[in-house]
Amino acid sequence: MTRGGVAEQGGNVGRVKVGILGATGLVGQQLVSRLEGHPWFELVALAASERSKGLRYGEATSWMLGPDPPRSVAGTVLCGCGAEDLAGCELLLSALDASAAGELEPLLTRAGFPIVSNASAFRQAPDVPLLIPEINADHLALIDSQRTDRSAGFLVTNPNCSVTGLALALAPLHRAFTVRRVVVTTLQAVSGAGLSGPRALDLVDNVVPFIRGEEEKIESELTKILGRMEGARLCEAELRVSAHCHRVAVQHGHLEAVSVELERSASPEQAARTLAEFEGGLRDLDLPSAPSRPIVVRSESDRPQPRLDRDTGSGMSVVVGRLRPCPVLGLKLELLSHNTVRGAAGGTLLNAELLVARGWLEGRGST
Amino acid sequence: MTRGGVAEQGGNVGRVKVGILGATGLVGQQLVSRLEGHPWFELVALAASERSKGLRYGEATSWMLGPDPPRSVAGTVLCGCGAEDLAGCELLLSALDASAAGELEPLLTRAGFPIVSNASAFRQAPDVPLLIPEINADHLALIDSQRTDRSAGFLVTNPNCSVTGLALALAPLHRAFTVRRVVVTTLQAVSGAGLSGPRALDLVDNVVPFIRGEEEKIESELTKILGRMEGARLCEAELRVSAHCHRVAVQHGHLEAVSVELERSASPEQAARTLAEFEGGLRDLDLPSAPSRPIVVRSESDRPQPRLDRDTGSGMSVVVGRLRPCPVLGLKLELLSHNTVRGAAGGTLLNAELLVARGWLEGRGST
Amino acid sequence: MTRGGVAEQGGNVGRVKVGILGATGLVGQQLVSRLEGHPWFELVALAASERSKGLRYGEATSWMLGPDPPRSVAGTVLCGCGAEDLAGCELLLSALDASAAGELEPLLTRAGFPIVSNASAFRQAPDVPLLIPEINADHLALIDSQRTDRSAGFLVTNPNCSVTGLALALAPLHRAFTVRRVVVTTLQAVSGAGLSGPRALDLVDNVVPFIRGEEEKIESELTKILGRMEGARLCEAELRVSAHCHRVAVQHGHLEAVSVELERSASPEQAARTLAEFEGGLRDLDLPSAPSRPIVVRSESDRPQPRLDRDTGSGMSVVVGRLRPCPVLGLKLELLSHNTVRGAAGGTLLNAELLVARGWLEGRGST
Amino acid sequence: MTRGGVAEQGGNVGRVKVGILGATGLVGQQLVSRLEGHPWFELVALAASERSKGLRYGEATSWMLGPDPPRSVAGTVLCGCGAEDLAGCELLLSALDASAAGELEPLLTRAGFPIVSNASAFRQAPDVPLLIPEINADHLALIDSQRTDRSAGFLVTNPNCSVTGLALALAPLHRAFTVRRVVVTTLQAVSGAGLSGPRALDLVDNVVPFIRGEEEKIESELTKILGRMEGARLCEAELRVSAHCHRVAVQHGHLEAVSVELERSASPEQAARTLAEFEGGLRDLDLPSAPSRPIVVRSESDRPQPRLDRDTGSGMSVVVGRLRPCPVLGLKLELLSHNTVRGAAGGTLLNAELLVARGWLEGRGST
Repeated sequence: MTRGGVAEQGGNVGRVKVGILGATGLVGQQLVSRLEGHPWFELVALAASERSKGLRYGEATSWMLGPDPPRSVAGTVLCGCGAEDLAGCELLLSALDASAAGELEPLLTRAGFPIVSNASAFRQAPDVPLLIPEINADHLALIDSQRTDRSAGFLVTNPNCSVTGLALALAPLHRAFTVRRVVVTTLQAVSGAGLSGPRALDLVDNVVPFIRGEEEKIESELTKILGRMEGARLCEAELRVSAHCHRVAVQHGHLEAVSVELERSASPEQAARTLAEFEGGLRDLDLPSAPSRPIVVRSESDRPQPRLDRDTGSGMSVVVGRLRPCPVLGLKLELLSHNTVRGAAGGTLLNAELLVARGWLEGRGST
Repeated sequence: MTRGGVAEQGGNVGRVKVGILGATGLVGQQLVSRLEGHPWFELVALAASERSKGLRYGEATSWMLGPDPPRSVAGTVLCGCGAEDLAGCELLLSALDASAAGELEPLLTRAGFPIVSNASAFRQAPDVPLLIPEINADHLALIDSQRTDRSAGFLVTNPNCSVTGLALALAPLHRAFTVRRVVVTTLQAVSGAGLSGPRALDLVDNVVPFIRGEEEKIESELTKILGRMEGARLCEAELRVSAHCHRVAVQHGHLEAVSVELERSASPEQAARTLAEFEGGLRDLDLPSAPSRPIVVRSESDRPQPRLDRDTGSGMSVVVGRLRPCPVLGLKLELLSHNTVRGAAGGTLLNAELLVARGWLEGRGST
Repeated sequence: MTRGGVAEQGGNVGRVKVGILGATGLVGQQLVSRLEGHPWFELVALAASERSKGLRYGEATSWMLGPDPPRSVAGTVLCGCGAEDLAGCELLLSALDASAAGELEPLLTRAGFPIVSNASAFRQAPDVPLLIPEINADHLALIDSQRTDRSAGFLVTNPNCSVTGLALALAPLHRAFTVRRVVVTTLQAVSGAGLSGPRALDLVDNVVPFIRGEEEKIESELTKILGRMEGARLCEAELRVSAHCHRVAVQHGHLEAVSVELERSASPEQAARTLAEFEGGLRDLDLPSAPSRPIVVRSESDRPQPRLDRDTGSGMSVVVGRLRPCPVLGLKLELLSHNTVRGAAGGTLLNAELLVARGWLEGRGST
Repeated sequence: MTRGGVAEQGGNVGRVKVGILGATGLVGQQLVSRLEGHPWFELVALAASERSKGLRYGEATSWMLGPDPPRSVAGTVLCGCGAEDLAGCELLLSALDASAAGELEPLLTRAGFPIVSNASAFRQAPDVPLLIPEINADHLALIDSQRTDRSAGFLVTNPNCSVTGLALALAPLHRAFTVRRVVVTTLQAVSGAGLSGPRALDLVDNVVPFIRGEEEKIESELTKILGRMEGARLCEAELRVSAHCHRVAVQHGHLEAVSVELERSASPEQAARTLAEFEGGLRDLDLPSAPSRPIVVRSESDRPQPRLDRDTGSGMSVVVGRLRPCPVLGLKLELLSHNTVRGAAGGTLLNAELLVARGWLEGRGST
């Protein structure tokens, strides 16, 4: 089934049947919300932990995206995360936390499911694409290393929420000028920590300069994302990254202050132009979640700001501003991306759309 | 009059008579508060703008440091900032904003007043010390270049609130290992912008990635502070600094994420030891505002935090934590300093105390 | 021109030409935003103070509702607030502040403009409707007292932002059970104070228990809104209201804790039913800004909450929860309404739509 | 041992040996902090849950009151809450949560310990004083009903954190004018919920209009506190209270908007005078934690505010402002009290001091 095929068939008939793993969490909620009325996907299963299994979605979920979950799903009964629970799904979107994903995702791919995951458990596995469609769609070739026959399942992941925006902003600069070194300081929103995130006690009149595991993720995921396929293998990009991570009292939107060293120097104006012109090669695919511009460059002195800019491109665009010379590394800038949209659920969904558009789900029947 | 002299005379008799310029603003309030019961200084004049002149301090001031201004000053009538208004002062502490300082400070030094100023107007003047007593007390020699005879006034300044903490944390590293390059990202408190600071509209659920003039100040003041006297001239330190500044929803306490390149590399442990052992050479002077330790190093993974750590050493210690290797520049750390105390009023006061202890006010009568 | 007429004419041809007074402020921005694509109104003039006149809207406006103002208006040149500037407008929407409104609105009505105003200047004038369409559409009859001939202008106002939600929640109870006494405590969002609202310094780790003039407005406007027409005169409702007002660190959404004494007692369940069933009599008019339900009743123990519930009904529904017995006055509840939408721009617009639907603009040509 | 006795003995020798139950929580931390250097009490045991038992206090505690716990206790090994663990204590201060208190406090009183508790478990027991020394010191007579011989232990409690301030502000009005009805709306700080309090997700750009059990506590505790002893029995005050509770993004300080109906009406000026003159009859006892004024009345239009006023009287004074007529109940006002000080640890400590001063611990040896 190709995207074209979907379009031709029209209506619900040809939509890919998807299930969400971890549907009650913050990222799961964003997936539910963004699948509402999705032209390519039909949501057929909401899977949750054993504790919530059997409850209706509306009862089990502390819905945080507005007054109520969409009516179409509020009454849906939550299923478990076993293969038998998910029969009927052609594709799984995983919003599991790392430890659950580490256990469940391999079982489900072995059971034949293609999984597009937001979880960190397998992002660093050498045969798992760490995918941002505008940057490294060619990494999908790694899928073939995962499976021996086309009927088997496979796993594709999207990066950590604070890496996604950084990778998107750096990719065009890397292509044009080759990024050598990056120092990035993040100011991350509370929704990035999910429903069991930080206490108000820690963030009223305060900032916490630490997020467990986050700096390591930024430093290691970026080089994989920007890596190049050499034959069937992925070679990581040769650049060094240093991250300082902070949690601040913001609901959504990770802000990042970045200093970059480029191999071939670029003026702030050249960099701005390179970023603004970046298209990411998705235009012809008409992916429903792809923003009209992956990167929006702003020229004001005090932007981007989380509250004002996080919903740019329905939360799928990275907003870059304050491009200026860096006395130490050459170029500096500020970037913002919506952490639960582009940095999580929206990124997962865009990856799933790319899989469909590129035919990776073809030939698969309902499991 | 030396510090010793002050001590010998005891009581109020021998205390230096000081006036505050800009007494109603946030920094002025901190000065008022910290002069309450000060052993060396007697507050004899509270000077404000023409608009407030003649009002009582308690009426004219929107006091932000607790329920009420100290009783001893609440009823004091505000005077103007003219030399005649301030006759009776042996020393002026200036909490004026930059433009008022640019106009008034030269008039007052010419009228014979020594001024210790928090204002930015003359920080970059080549003959004006940009003083942090623990770091560059020898820069006081510049005073001689300012005046032709000992009866004349002079000006000493303290650095910008976000520079002070950075300079204190870097100075011992610079001495021991020579700092070459610094990338610093600040998360600055709202009190740093004074009484006419940012709107709640801009900081509820938001961060503003810009503070006018701040990055320039950090980049230029640090090299002056860390400079060396060569004869009567100050040679700036040869290091490069790049700053990214943010305003966050915190009352007090500037947090700074720093990556540092050292000429002679140091492990995080060596750096921690160097910082923790730093004394700053003030011990013998017994300056009343000097903290027992200028730098406090914490070993927890998530500290310093503004709300928890800003009052360390009565707000006069810089708190450093998260010392760890930086993949790009070699060493990284997080630091916090109280912006209206060490970074402003407390810094001003410490400078004033150093002047007294070193005898710079000797031989001056009341003007 | 009736609403039906508008519909029949279709397209832009038959839309009413409107101008916004005070277009750059927060309420003006909401008006601009909600007029984008409005089926009945065509925005033809953006009027601002003399200071901004001549600038393009996008330059003059510190846009707070997202990344950018709508493209259709960003390039529009701001005009002044004089009658000559506004020729071409068939209707004016006023988002002026009280003092500007006090001066300009009478000049403009005398010049023949119908004005629907959010300003407080004339809310208490005996011949000016203080209009909430679902509650007191019959108060429009007061317009006839304002003007001697049908060609003249007139003024209609909407209530204060914290009164609107309260009036909507109390009106059905008043009709069914007669409200006698009300004690209301508000927790109001910062956007209620407009672009020159409270400082972050006052709202980080703090609440301000005072909003100038607000308690008086609540106590006096409510009785007018709930009043009855007796012939051509409006008789205020005989009920007593006591208000306690607070400003809290919330962007949008005024939360109000209300205790009510009813003449004929009602159980929480009866009250809930009465509120949930309230329609407001607008259904047949199909006003574009009217929400499907003016009042949404929630049954959770911890709702409404500003962040979750303020956009209910596109910000035009009042959300009521926590209906329970009050040991003192009989019934208590919590309500929320979006202060810059239902409580300001959305309320103004709904009033304007009612005027059109009821034919109050008929027979008027372009001035 | 009487207070006088303590004073006479001087030094540590005569200090009462106290233990803290629940020492690692927020209220426990405040107790630890306020016992540092206490003239009457010597802290000899820090008791915690089985989980923390055996750890050093500094390791086991997530200290929230500044950089570090006092040095004197940081190295103390936590003991359990059994009678044997606490041998050596002459008095226990309980900062346990309600369920732990419900289980442990009876065991410990039976084992002979006097306990002064902040927990809610037994506040409503008819023979347990719900004590605020300035209001109802005579309720201590209830202790005699609790025990059959003087060697046995007993329990005294302090009220809920949002009730304490309310009771203190109403008590003088009740005495002078007889309070009949009260409607109170609270805006409560996050520290009121302890270390496992609300998520940042719920309080950034938001308010939660619900705190489990809180309204019930306010409505029931107030009448007990203001009750009168009739012989050996306590008769609750005959007044009706209605509470609306909210959690807001404030660290410390519960703000309460109160409307009061008095039997004998009082003008705002009379009420202000009555409150300001209130002494509470503790002056002669010189209790170390008693503030010089239990109630501080402010005359500004916008006070009290949590951040500015919570530390009035070292957090032990209730601050009252905005006294004005209430159109519904007669009088209205705003009050603030520090929830973890006067409303918890400070209140507990003051109660303990009263017990000592009144001789309730006399004749008891170390258990």
